[in-house]
Amino acid sequence: MTAGAPRAVEAVAFVGAGPGAPDLLTRRGRDRLAVADVVVSDRPSLDDLINRYAPVACERLLVGRTRRQAAWALGAIADVLADRQRAGHRVVRLKSGDLFICSRAAEEIEALRARSVPVELVPGVSAAVAAPLAAGVTPVPGGRGTTTIVAGNDDPVYPAVDWPGVGRAGGTVVVLMGRAHQRFIAEHLIAAGRPPDTPVHLVHGSTRDDEQIVTTVLAELGAVRLPAPATAVITDREHSGAHP
Amino acid sequence: MTAGAPRAVEAVAFVGAGPGAPDLLTRRGRDRLAVADVVVSDRPSLDDLINRYAPVACERLLVGRTRRQAAWALGAIADVLADRQRAGHRVVRLKSGDLFICSRAAEEIEALRARSVPVELVPGVSAAVAAPLAAGVTPVPGGRGTTTIVAGNDDPVYPAVDWPGVGRAGGTVVVLMGRAHQRFIAEHLIAAGRPPDTPVHLVHGSTRDDEQIVTTVLAELGAVRLPAPATAVITDREHSGAHP
Repeated sequence: MTAGAPRAVEAVAFVGAGPGAPDLLTRRGRDRLAVADVVVSDRPSLDDLINRYAPVACERLLVGRTRRQAAWALGAIADVLADRQRAGHRVVRLKSGDLFICSRAAEEIEALRARSVPVELVPGVSAAVAAPLAAGVTPVPGGRGTTTIVAGNDDPVYPAVDWPGVGRAGGTVVVLMGRAHQRFIAEHLIAAGRPPDTPVHLVHGSTRDDEQIVTTVLAELGAVRLPAPATAVITDREHSGAHP
Repeated sequence: MTAGAPRAVEAVAFVGAGPGAPDLLTRRGRDRLAVADVVVSDRPSLDDLINRYAPVACERLLVGRTRRQAAWALGAIADVLADRQRAGHRVVRLKSGDLFICSRAAEEIEALRARSVPVELVPGVSAAVAAPLAAGVTPVPGGRGTTTIVAGNDDPVYPAVDWPGVGRAGGTVVVLMGRAHQRFIAEHLIAAGRPPDTPVHLVHGSTRDDEQIVTTVLAELGAVRLPAPATAVITDREHSGAHP
């Protein structure tokens, strides 16, 4: 449904789609999709949401890497978002996850701001929350404590993640996208003082139909394999509410 | 709508209500409310959600502290949840936030498991995500880095939060419920190496009608006052995507 007459200019809506299950989209996210003229997404896995909630006739752009194409460059994505918005179209940029924690939405948001295009940020349910709950891990009793959420897809020598610091900070550690570096991560957390027998839940596809969960201990994390992307939930053993 | 004939026994649904705005509830949370026989909540601030989505005739129990009552004891809450569930009622336990990070749902979930009552955990949108997005803080560009989320309502001498460790771990720090200890927290983070001029966004009521946001720097955090509860978003200055 492309606009007939130009409308008042509206912000480009960045929408966090949540961890995967279509019914974990928020109402606000759904409302934005329902009136979209253009929906831009990264993966075919979000097609189900778009099919359900966006108008049949809206323009759909898949800008991530697929078998048919390389991922679009940041500038090309920002240009198409800006162009459609300036043409008076209602534009939704649908991103997996919550839109904030370890999200790659940042560059695009900054690129639109640099182009003076208004943006609206609609938060979603975080995979860093959905994965532990899918594994039945409850919050730390008492409502106290620390939750550290780390993007584990860094090159092991990349300085952005201070693994010893993460290990020492205490509380629950949730590692998103750390599949390729599980052994490295476990070694660093153990070296930082985390007990080798700390319970760890490895979760693939939390809330999706293909969800898989393996429970192990920190010392064994490097030996466990699940399909990517996998989220590792490293419990706070002393305060753990983990359910066996 | 209490059940006529007893139904197949269903799990007690713990639902994360999100940061405040009714349209940030997930579809799944709404679906659970829509068929609830009993809804148990802590605060009048969730009444709007219940009014919108739960059956008019459902039983409503407010178990948090109000002007009229002390908060119910954990055992009493668990007992009523278990009793209603065993009577064949559909029970929703509605909690603010995401249900995991710094959530006090843990004790109740454990208490129900100890009573052999099945539970379903429906994740919500985290205030720790909604607050920075409300402040216009984008994720760390590059999709890398660390997000540490801390419950700041601890007694300052309570050992559960390792403030120096949090400060050293790098990345964005989100402090929930830290209003009473802002000065203490800032001092510890500066002592741990965070620059005193690190941009900080203090957010009250993110996504709600009474949302208030103040932007300051870490060294001044102790002097800023917002109504409780307030969330402090301490940016990762070196990688910050904070928008002025």
